[in-house]
Amino acid sequence: MLVLGLDPGLAITGYGLVEGDGQHLCPIAYGVLRTPAGIAIADRLVMLHDALADLLAEYRPPVAAVEELFFATNARTAIMVGEARGVVLLTLAQAGVRIAEYTPLQVKQAVTGYGQADKLQVQQMVRLLLNLAELPKPDDAADALALSICHHNSSRMAQLLE
Amino acid sequence: MLVLGLDPGLAITGYGLVEGDGQHLCPIAYGVLRTPAGIAIADRLVMLHDALADLLAEYRPPVAAVEELFFATNARTAIMVGEARGVVLLTLAQAGVRIAEYTPLQVKQAVTGYGQADKLQVQQMVRLLLNLAELPKPDDAADALALSICHHNSSRMAQLLE
Repeated sequence: MLVLGLDPGLAITGYGLVEGDGQHLCPIAYGVLRTPAGIAIADRLVMLHDALADLLAEYRPPVAAVEELFFATNARTAIMVGEARGVVLLTLAQAGVRIAEYTPLQVKQAVTGYGQADKLQVQQMVRLLLNLAELPKPDDAADALALSICHHNSSRMAQLLE
Repeated sequence: MLVLGLDPGLAITGYGLVEGDGQHLCPIAYGVLRTPAGIAIADRLVMLHDALADLLAEYRPPVAAVEELFFATNARTAIMVGEARGVVLLTLAQAGVRIAEYTPLQVKQAVTGYGQADKLQVQQMVRLLLNLAELPKPDDAADALALSICHHNSSRMAQLLE
C-alpha cells in the first residue's frame, strides 16, 4: 500500500510517499510544496491546491496521513495553518483519497516508541526505518515521511488485531 | 458594482450580494451555505467549495468582501475556521474574483459608524441601509450583507479621495 504523508502549511507543505507490504517500508518520493511569500494568500492557496493535485495525479496514493493540530502559538497562526490544511483536505477529497489524521504525539509514538522524542530523534528513526543514506531534509519532508510510517504501523496493528 | 459579502465557517457560511451604483445599495440575494455535522470535514469542505462555486457561477460578482479574523476562543476553533476560510479563498481565486478583507471592527464602523456596536445594532443598520422589510436572518447572512456594505462604502471613500 502506498501512503502519502502530509504536513500542511501555507509556505511549506511537506510530503512523503512510502510503499509498504506489511513487513518492509520503501520510500518512493519526498519533498516539499512551497508557495512564495509576498503574493496574496488566496493565490498561494491556488498554487498549493494545484501542486498537490499534480502530486496525487502522478502517484495516485489511495490514502493520505495528515497531521492533526489542536494548538498553535496564536490564533492568527492557527487560522493560517487552518487555511492551508482546509485546501489540502479539499484537494484530497476531490481526488478520492482516503484521509487518516494523526497528532504529532501519535506520530512520535509510532516512529520512535516515545511520545516525548525530539525532532532530531524522529528524523533519525525515519532515516533508519526507510534505509535512507542521510537525514531527510527539510524538516517538513521528514515530518511527512514520519506521518506515512505512522499510518503504515497503525494499519498493520489494526490488521493484526482483527 | 455587485459585491459578494462572505462570512466563512465550516457549518455555516453566510453570503450577501449587494449591488451599488455609488449612491444606492440594493440587496440581490442573501442566505447561508450549510454543511451537515456528522460527516468527514474533508467532505464538508468539498460541499462548501461546490456550493460557493455554484453561487459564483450564478451571480458572477467581480469582487468579494471576506471577514478577516485574528482571534478565536481556542486554537482548535481557529484551525476549523481557517479550514473553511482557506477553501473560500481558494474558490474565489479559482473563479477570478477579487478579494477584499475586513475585520469585524471595520465592518461595524462602516455600517453603524460605531466600532463597539452590538450584533443587533449591526443587523438593524443593514435592514435600514438595504430597505429590507425585516432583519436579515440568520446572523451569518446579516454579517455577510454588512461585509458587502462595508466594501461598497470603502470603495466610494477611495473614489472620493482620488
